[in-house]
Amino acid sequence: MPTLRLDLAYDGSGFRGYAYQEGLRTVQGELERALLTATGAPVETAVAGRTDAGVHARGQVVSAQVEGEVDAGRLLRSLNGILGPEIAVMSVSLIEDDFNARFSALWRRYRYTISTGVASDPLRRGFEWHVGPGLDRVAMTSVATAFVGDHDFSAFCRSAPGRSNRRQVEDARWEEEEEERLHFWIQANAFCHQMVRSLVGLCYDVGRGFTEASAVPGIIESRDRSRVATVAPPHGLILWEVGY
Amino acid sequence: MPTLRLDLAYDGSGFRGYAYQEGLRTVQGELERALLTATGAPVETAVAGRTDAGVHARGQVVSAQVEGEVDAGRLLRSLNGILGPEIAVMSVSLIEDDFNARFSALWRRYRYTISTGVASDPLRRGFEWHVGPGLDRVAMTSVATAFVGDHDFSAFCRSAPGRSNRRQVEDARWEEEEEERLHFWIQANAFCHQMVRSLVGLCYDVGRGFTEASAVPGIIESRDRSRVATVAPPHGLILWEVGY
Repeated sequence: MPTLRLDLAYDGSGFRGYAYQEGLRTVQGELERALLTATGAPVETAVAGRTDAGVHARGQVVSAQVEGEVDAGRLLRSLNGILGPEIAVMSVSLIEDDFNARFSALWRRYRYTISTGVASDPLRRGFEWHVGPGLDRVAMTSVATAFVGDHDFSAFCRSAPGRSNRRQVEDARWEEEEEERLHFWIQANAFCHQMVRSLVGLCYDVGRGFTEASAVPGIIESRDRSRVATVAPPHGLILWEVGY
Repeated sequence: MPTLRLDLAYDGSGFRGYAYQEGLRTVQGELERALLTATGAPVETAVAGRTDAGVHARGQVVSAQVEGEVDAGRLLRSLNGILGPEIAVMSVSLIEDDFNARFSALWRRYRYTISTGVASDPLRRGFEWHVGPGLDRVAMTSVATAFVGDHDFSAFCRSAPGRSNRRQVEDARWEEEEEERLHFWIQANAFCHQMVRSLVGLCYDVGRGFTEASAVPGIIESRDRSRVATVAPPHGLILWEVGY
């Protein structure tokens, strides 16, 4: 059974997240239905990042084992013909048998975008959180630095009890694209549920002066989710790239 | 009566163009209704670029004369509160009395975006024309160069008979943003109706090999609209900036 790697981009606005849920419109549900139509057999997939409802992807990776011979180029065209404009398969490739999009991934990289102009930009409103002017960018930058390293991120995770929330953050920083737009880049070995949006929420609270930057290391150490008040909305978040 | 300058951005997808039309949803219609609500009196506006149905703007400029005292900052907030997320007023300023957004403009600059990947990018599909791979970029670049200068653009204009279609194009070129995305930048003193989309359409026809690049000067000189087969769709076009 050949193993396939699919690279996906999607606009998450119209989906209840990546992961399959009975009776709801999900990216996985649409993709597996398209794979069934294209290959004629049910296909089980693994995914690098289970994005939440409303979160987008530019570099999602999915793996699947399929029956029989596969023409990757034909499957690529066929899937894009079946899927609507909200999901695009950017490439299909045949890959070594033991590749698994979830377990083989070494790191995930996300981007979260905040806009700080007087009005929300109509051309990018589906992909950034408009918060208006007046954020303290220097303070936000210092907060991002505190996230880097090996931490228990329980204060930022909505997770089942008993699961470890220890993660290795390799990079976390704010970058200005232009005067009124800030990107938060974060790369880690893995992320727990709602982690990026909660980290952005804390940066926002500090940028607004609701929380002192000096309190951040204590909040991380507390592992207490009730100390993080703000979860940034999903539409500003994009799963950017996965490393193998 | 103070004269106002308003700088606008809008997502043109949901509008039947900029210019007011009785009973149809237009940007001008929405804006003038918001101005009426905000100032309490009917307001007549002038505009730099009358964009077509489905065309977007990042740097549209509108001028208006209003009754009585105006607090520009308050009007800005008030208009953005009234208008939906598809139109944003980026700034409101009081300006010299003889300023007219249409007649004072020295140049207009547009950007048209084509994407050439195997699949349409779901995150940008509202703002670019997906044509797929295989365009001859070198040929397209040479076509753009032929547009620069003082020409009668009748071959590219849907205009009322008897109106001059002579325009001064100051800059026209293709730029690669990345491997699979091309921007057409064009700046001219003014544009006639459908001119940018027809110029892009001709570039596309040459890029596909449907039309020879060497035929382009003859097509321009012919002033014959039937010689330009393709008009690029509106959603790839953005009114980028207006110079005064």
